[in-house]
Amino acid sequence: MTKLRMGIIGMGNMGSDHAKKLINGAVPEVELTAVSEMDVSRLEACGSYLPETVARFGGAKELMDSGLCDAVIIATPHYEHPRLAIMAFSKGLHVLCEKPAGVYTKQVREMNEQAQGSGLVFGMMFNQRTNPMYRKMHELVNGGELGAMKRVNWIITDWYRSQAYYDSGSWRATWAGEGGGVLINQCPHNIDLLQWICGMPEKVRAFRHEGKWHHIEVEDDVTAYMEYANGATGVFVTTTADLPGTNRLEITLEMGKLVCENDTLTLHKLSQNEREFCFGSKDGFSRPEVTVSVVPVEGDNSQHLGVIKSFARAVLHGEPLIAGGEEGIHSLGLSNAMHLSSWLGETVTLPVDEDAYLEELNKRIAASKRKEANPVLFSVDGSFGS
Amino acid sequence: MTKLRMGIIGMGNMGSDHAKKLINGAVPEVELTAVSEMDVSRLEACGSYLPETVARFGGAKELMDSGLCDAVIIATPHYEHPRLAIMAFSKGLHVLCEKPAGVYTKQVREMNEQAQGSGLVFGMMFNQRTNPMYRKMHELVNGGELGAMKRVNWIITDWYRSQAYYDSGSWRATWAGEGGGVLINQCPHNIDLLQWICGMPEKVRAFRHEGKWHHIEVEDDVTAYMEYANGATGVFVTTTADLPGTNRLEITLEMGKLVCENDTLTLHKLSQNEREFCFGSKDGFSRPEVTVSVVPVEGDNSQHLGVIKSFARAVLHGEPLIAGGEEGIHSLGLSNAMHLSSWLGETVTLPVDEDAYLEELNKRIAASKRKEANPVLFSVDGSFGS
Repeated sequence: MTKLRMGIIGMGNMGSDHAKKLINGAVPEVELTAVSEMDVSRLEACGSYLPETVARFGGAKELMDSGLCDAVIIATPHYEHPRLAIMAFSKGLHVLCEKPAGVYTKQVREMNEQAQGSGLVFGMMFNQRTNPMYRKMHELVNGGELGAMKRVNWIITDWYRSQAYYDSGSWRATWAGEGGGVLINQCPHNIDLLQWICGMPEKVRAFRHEGKWHHIEVEDDVTAYMEYANGATGVFVTTTADLPGTNRLEITLEMGKLVCENDTLTLHKLSQNEREFCFGSKDGFSRPEVTVSVVPVEGDNSQHLGVIKSFARAVLHGEPLIAGGEEGIHSLGLSNAMHLSSWLGETVTLPVDEDAYLEELNKRIAASKRKEANPVLFSVDGSFGS
Repeated sequence: MTKLRMGIIGMGNMGSDHAKKLINGAVPEVELTAVSEMDVSRLEACGSYLPETVARFGGAKELMDSGLCDAVIIATPHYEHPRLAIMAFSKGLHVLCEKPAGVYTKQVREMNEQAQGSGLVFGMMFNQRTNPMYRKMHELVNGGELGAMKRVNWIITDWYRSQAYYDSGSWRATWAGEGGGVLINQCPHNIDLLQWICGMPEKVRAFRHEGKWHHIEVEDDVTAYMEYANGATGVFVTTTADLPGTNRLEITLEMGKLVCENDTLTLHKLSQNEREFCFGSKDGFSRPEVTVSVVPVEGDNSQHLGVIKSFARAVLHGEPLIAGGEEGIHSLGLSNAMHLSSWLGETVTLPVDEDAYLEELNKRIAASKRKEANPVLFSVDGSFGS
């Protein structure tokens, strides 16, 4: 095999964006051979830009059974991700799954089990993991030279969405259709990076507000407080209503501080480990020296195309993935913990109580209101966060 | 009266710093006439730099009864502030009180009542209110042109203190001696500014850690989440153990965002109110224009001397104070709420339940351990925060 024959399942904002790039040869290792979409008008709309050589199907099963694909990208509403991935594995297809891995970890655990037994390549579309700044932060925090982490503070409020966005699909921002708000739609990237760079917290207390800034039934404003096993604490703040939003990730460690903001990673490095200084200094107000530098970061931020490319090269040449599919459960578990904590009004410990989470989610699904929608596609340019 | 005859009660780090500046004529409106200090060796030490014309007393009452002073600065450990202020009012002396106003609001409420009936000038040493950046933020947030506040996030972790600092006084960082940690000693300034600029929140859930980074019985690490009556939320993070710390105050409003960091106040102003845009836009991902500018701020940051000067001019010429003494109860009430929330492990509403707070505080005072101390004075240069 020299080219991976790829099918895309779900031609909404993300699926159609991937398709347009792939037919233009943006990933030489990949040939787009088929797409599927359940909505008839959307499927028809694909005809305006897809070449005749790309087959179009009204359902995922037909696409998988066509024999035209070696692999699929799953870009449907979130609840369907695990079911479709499991179906693909059963048909011998490699899977690249859009985030989030699913809506609840019970469902995702089953998907992971099926993937492990399959011998197939399974990747998650955590496109922000290609950002060289976050890769560098991962390396610096986990490399040891900065000592143990003491605090993390991520203000990630630059996920602005207008009411028109929420009105653009009947599934959007509903418990039954999407299973959550900013935590499940926009933030899986950030929550994945948070756990990838800082590890999983032990405890979470979150404060979510549903429909605070938009006419939606799910959350659009979240503050979460976290405690880690080593004693570090953290804060994660997000919303889809702040303008202009902020994306500022600060991590304090024993040897100094990393700040990632405005496309710049700054290291404030101490001349001495703070823990040693604290107990060694004879003076009450003095401090060790600090050297401030902008950390050079190498490589392009290849985003979705980089993830698709590495996925294709994993299948074709056995190269490593940007993010393994099984890793999707970590960020989902953390996001589920934020939901559960807020619903129960108390601190929850991780791993999240899957039954308690699903019970609470199901209450909300049962009460979820069918909404009128104006089903349009938007250009996703500039919407992927930073 | 052309000069205010001032006495200083308590010659610890702060009292002795004020004295040294006043004898050098730093505030022309003030003549230092007396000091008092209960610790014999500290009182003796004053002799090395105070001129003979400044009387020295072993107790506050003697200083107040001497007839040498028109006004006093109270710079003793916190618990004594209300008792000494009330004594001063009863003797017809004007009072400038170091922060915090006291340790619990019940005590401070009595002080405020005595002040109100006295006809005397009563000021609080909220020296950070002289910072032109915070004054400008107060003006912009309360002026109305930026619309309603939606979010405030203050990371104020640049209050670093070594173990030697905590070991320098037997009262320090004990429940019995000081009544709290970073919230009651370092943060009264920030909590005062927070309530002055943003108003008082309605609800607080705080996560305090006692002795996390130092061998002390009070808190040295705090994260507090706040909710305001208009729907805004906030986060306040502080510690005395981060190096280098951060001082970043961000306020998001309907018309944009203010960020105060690194001695710079930046305004990100929208071309349209976000609330109107959100419901008026037909596109899901578009945004109004943003104009970014550094806000010019005028005036010196005169700090303690500015507060002392305005206090003197209030007595001598009826000019306005930087911060009225009665205002000290607001920041104390907010800090008490953070303590109580953390002790109870639940969200508390404001105004804080004074009896519940005092009951919890008294439990800790009763269990407070007498500690060995190495009673030294440190230069406070550079220790006042930014």
